[in-house]
Amino acid sequence: MKIQRADDITANDVNIDGAEKVRMRMLVGPDDEAPTFYMRQFVVEPSGHTPRHEHGWEHECYILAGSGVVLTPDGAKPIGPGDCLLVPPNEEHQFRNTGDQPLTFLCLVPKTD
Amino acid sequence: MKIQRADDITANDVNIDGAEKVRMRMLVGPDDEAPTFYMRQFVVEPSGHTPRHEHGWEHECYILAGSGVVLTPDGAKPIGPGDCLLVPPNEEHQFRNTGDQPLTFLCLVPKTD
Repeated sequence: MKIQRADDITANDVNIDGAEKVRMRMLVGPDDEAPTFYMRQFVVEPSGHTPRHEHGWEHECYILAGSGVVLTPDGAKPIGPGDCLLVPPNEEHQFRNTGDQPLTFLCLVPKTD
Repeated sequence: MKIQRADDITANDVNIDGAEKVRMRMLVGPDDEAPTFYMRQFVVEPSGHTPRHEHGWEHECYILAGSGVVLTPDGAKPIGPGDCLLVPPNEEHQFRNTGDQPLTFLCLVPKTD
């Protein structure tokens, strides 16, 4: 059984097109031999954002801290601590930090390898 | 896209053998047509615990609040906010609240239906 404090896991810069001021920790992933899905933690600094994109797999997210908006097909919706989200496959989305503190959230994805 | 405050989702008593003072919210599940895995939130009241059991699927957990222990094949290990866990398939486990506040955690499982 893996038990680890998330803060003790290295947060790596997300260097993909469209990402600004975003870091990611792989909390439960390939190195843990997770069988079905992976748990990542994202930290978006103030004024930062994830890419605006879509893809063929879902996200399941839980907002831990901070405030921001998620862009949806119906426009921008506010998000804050305690919110849970399902981003279905092939739906455009983007997370933006609109506050003055880091926006931190879990974002889980199915294993695709 | 589903966006919902977790506290606004009904918490149902977990009435299975070995569970004491446990409630569960299905944050992202079958009703949302989640494709691959489900996100649940458990609330274990002080002195409560989940069943001591094992099964053929994994758990991926994130502790949100409170304090407790998880029973592992190597004994009881402390858990607290910000801890992430992988319980591999077929490994015995149990979550116990050893504090005086609710122990709240996310516990995700693969879709099996």
